[in-house]
Amino acid sequence: MEASVGLGAVFLSEVLGTGVLLLLGAGVVANVLLTGSKGKDGGWLLISFGWGLAVFAGVYVAYKSGAHLNPAVTIGILTSGAAEYAPGVPVGFGSTIVYFAGEVLGAFLGAVFAWLTYKPHFDAEPDEGLKLAVFSTGPAIRSYAWNLVCEIIGTFVLVFVILAFAKTPTQIGPLAVALLVVGIGASLGGPTGYAINPARDLGPRIAHALLPLSYKGTDGEAIGKKDSDWSYSWVPVVGPIIGGAIAGVVTSLVF
Amino acid sequence: MEASVGLGAVFLSEVLGTGVLLLLGAGVVANVLLTGSKGKDGGWLLISFGWGLAVFAGVYVAYKSGAHLNPAVTIGILTSGAAEYAPGVPVGFGSTIVYFAGEVLGAFLGAVFAWLTYKPHFDAEPDEGLKLAVFSTGPAIRSYAWNLVCEIIGTFVLVFVILAFAKTPTQIGPLAVALLVVGIGASLGGPTGYAINPARDLGPRIAHALLPLSYKGTDGEAIGKKDSDWSYSWVPVVGPIIGGAIAGVVTSLVF
Amino acid sequence: MEASVGLGAVFLSEVLGTGVLLLLGAGVVANVLLTGSKGKDGGWLLISFGWGLAVFAGVYVAYKSGAHLNPAVTIGILTSGAAEYAPGVPVGFGSTIVYFAGEVLGAFLGAVFAWLTYKPHFDAEPDEGLKLAVFSTGPAIRSYAWNLVCEIIGTFVLVFVILAFAKTPTQIGPLAVALLVVGIGASLGGPTGYAINPARDLGPRIAHALLPLSYKGTDGEAIGKKDSDWSYSWVPVVGPIIGGAIAGVVTSLVF
Amino acid sequence: MEASVGLGAVFLSEVLGTGVLLLLGAGVVANVLLTGSKGKDGGWLLISFGWGLAVFAGVYVAYKSGAHLNPAVTIGILTSGAAEYAPGVPVGFGSTIVYFAGEVLGAFLGAVFAWLTYKPHFDAEPDEGLKLAVFSTGPAIRSYAWNLVCEIIGTFVLVFVILAFAKTPTQIGPLAVALLVVGIGASLGGPTGYAINPARDLGPRIAHALLPLSYKGTDGEAIGKKDSDWSYSWVPVVGPIIGGAIAGVVTSLVF
Repeated sequence: MEASVGLGAVFLSEVLGTGVLLLLGAGVVANVLLTGSKGKDGGWLLISFGWGLAVFAGVYVAYKSGAHLNPAVTIGILTSGAAEYAPGVPVGFGSTIVYFAGEVLGAFLGAVFAWLTYKPHFDAEPDEGLKLAVFSTGPAIRSYAWNLVCEIIGTFVLVFVILAFAKTPTQIGPLAVALLVVGIGASLGGPTGYAINPARDLGPRIAHALLPLSYKGTDGEAIGKKDSDWSYSWVPVVGPIIGGAIAGVVTSLVF
Repeated sequence: MEASVGLGAVFLSEVLGTGVLLLLGAGVVANVLLTGSKGKDGGWLLISFGWGLAVFAGVYVAYKSGAHLNPAVTIGILTSGAAEYAPGVPVGFGSTIVYFAGEVLGAFLGAVFAWLTYKPHFDAEPDEGLKLAVFSTGPAIRSYAWNLVCEIIGTFVLVFVILAFAKTPTQIGPLAVALLVVGIGASLGGPTGYAINPARDLGPRIAHALLPLSYKGTDGEAIGKKDSDWSYSWVPVVGPIIGGAIAGVVTSLVF
Repeated sequence: MEASVGLGAVFLSEVLGTGVLLLLGAGVVANVLLTGSKGKDGGWLLISFGWGLAVFAGVYVAYKSGAHLNPAVTIGILTSGAAEYAPGVPVGFGSTIVYFAGEVLGAFLGAVFAWLTYKPHFDAEPDEGLKLAVFSTGPAIRSYAWNLVCEIIGTFVLVFVILAFAKTPTQIGPLAVALLVVGIGASLGGPTGYAINPARDLGPRIAHALLPLSYKGTDGEAIGKKDSDWSYSWVPVVGPIIGGAIAGVVTSLVF
Repeated sequence: MEASVGLGAVFLSEVLGTGVLLLLGAGVVANVLLTGSKGKDGGWLLISFGWGLAVFAGVYVAYKSGAHLNPAVTIGILTSGAAEYAPGVPVGFGSTIVYFAGEVLGAFLGAVFAWLTYKPHFDAEPDEGLKLAVFSTGPAIRSYAWNLVCEIIGTFVLVFVILAFAKTPTQIGPLAVALLVVGIGASLGGPTGYAINPARDLGPRIAHALLPLSYKGTDGEAIGKKDSDWSYSWVPVVGPIIGGAIAGVVTSLVF
């Protein structure tokens, strides 16, 4: 009944949707963290709403591909045993790779546009750690094992509840996902900054590594050493993959 | 017309839904209170939204059993004289007990998962009172009689308005309950921290009593005395039961 | 087609709805202002959401009578030339009086219950001005003329947009009114604390005058002079009446 | 099928809708910035919600004309190749001018009413910069090129996602636009204060230039020099026009 959607359209849709997600998501972090921004020190609820509404906007933009915007969602649908990733998009090896690629590329591009939006504030910011935090997550207390647990639990809730949405009559679609993300950020974001999405963390970290971000002193000389913290980078990739996979399996068992 | 739902499915549904409720609810308190968390001192509105959206997520997960997630809701439906707890689940002694058991067990498990999510922050937190506050409610000014009044009034509003939802055409289902809980937290949560749910308080208090939560000094020695404040524990159980029961009776009289 | 609704049912409905409105509305002010409350200094957005969600809950409770909860809304419907105050409730002198009476009584009772909820905090609060602020509004800068203008404009927006809702297809009913009230509070509440509702201000002011609210010193002696500020009390009554009446007339002209 | 809507009705509708938008939008800025206001220092999330709910109210009021409220939206619809600006309103030179004129006049009038609402606080405010900020936007770090980039990106997201709404089934209409504006404010508002709307900035700036806004000292003498910052005024006009135009073109290509 549903017309087939080509993989090129899926790719473009996920790039655009994840791009909007990261533009707004990295944007709210920049607004709260960077020197001189009007939302400086705006608080955790501002960050939680910023990311939630970033998802909201991204979901509308990527409606054609089912708006995964997140490899953990793709994986959760896969392990739940569903036949389609979206109406007209069959689950398969090729489509899975297309989702992953679109999500990571979109996240990369969205972070670049967030950097362009906040360019004068990046230039004025002496703290290299705050700059990295706009792009990628980092733990409040570094403990790889517990940070991983945190990301697994947060992503499990995300994917499990999204999959539950599909089983219930709901009139509010993208708003429900947005509010879920606000809630997860408010509640489970404290220890690791809630990546809960491998693309959301990896794509912008690549952008951070490639972009010119060193602070320039008054004589134009670069100050500070840029560090993309690759030693932590596996946690917000592996944790969400595990959490999403478990959510899919649990969904297939309990619903 | 509606297919019958087995009591095993009701039990599992309430465990999962109340588990998600407490994972996110205890989580937001941990985020705002515990040392080093990114949402530290995030304010009362963050807590209000965190708990409201915890309900939001839990309601979707527990849709099969009508998503009571709260013995006071179960009791309110009972005293309102309704025939069913959810479509296909008749009101009865056995079903009532199954709801209660699922709600308390779910709340216990949700609190344990919140503890796992914030494990490094519990380990770093020297204040035993803040740790308990993640699990269970406590009064701002201890006065058993007035604390009880506060819990009765808060729970009455919760159950009364939820029962009113069922009498009106509404398109927003779980969102309406979530916003109601945000509102009750914002408005009536000041004196006691709004348990408004016996399971939400009792299950996590049991978890607090069982889990290893003592602060460890630099030499690894346990510091501080864990106290689950059982002397207060009856207030957030009895108050919500009374409030919910009154709400059911009033609903049957005025609607 | 629509069954007639008796004036007794209208009265009870408005009492209950306005009661819930004031219980939650006065409650959020108590939470933010009173000594020792957990939401102390929670900020203006907390207050804005608290009042908005107070309306949300009250509207559901009072659905039978169309949930005016506010004489300015009643007057706006009257001056807009509508035939009914709610489905089955014809506009008329008697029904108008019944709405007014129910709204003021409900607001009185709701404020009393808010006082009961926060009783230990009222007892501990030495500042008489903060206690009055829980019940009734007061201007940030006292200027009867400009305070009146502020209340007229705020109430005009409230009633005008509510009447616009009725002309448009909307799926979100009570949520729309709630968000409108959040917005008016956020935007127009700064100068006078946005009564925008004669009953919301007058009923609780009567409660304030009648209730025992003096601060007791350590020797049990009453300290401080209770002042219900009757000299200002006409502003939040007359302003909203004018604003609501204008909104009804404008609606009948432009839509 | 859809009855034609006259251009006079379109004009009135946009004046009213943009008027409500600016009354509430300028109002929330006044509430947060001006001396003595109850929402003083209420934070960026309060501002983000204030503007978002200002759009929410304005959209309902202007439903007849499709509620553009923003020349960038009008231009985006134009460049997307749509046939109608709203049901019954064909795209054309005359209708485009009518939208622009109504939007700018409405924004002017809304700012005047916001000024009336906060009149005692304008009189008490010694900081001329804060007064201007109630009317018009200004950059945190002045850099015309990067400020322009920021406005282009912010407006692109606004118009692109609004146009995406029209391609998807959504039940929440004005709420979706409101939440989008909350999100853009939270995320992309830091550098320039997010005009993302030429009328929103230009109309109030004209009002600022015309209104008597000088601070009066204790002897009644005017203090301070009013400066409407016309040197920056082209940025929040040109940026949104470019962003909206690009959004329309991209929409026609990708959806």
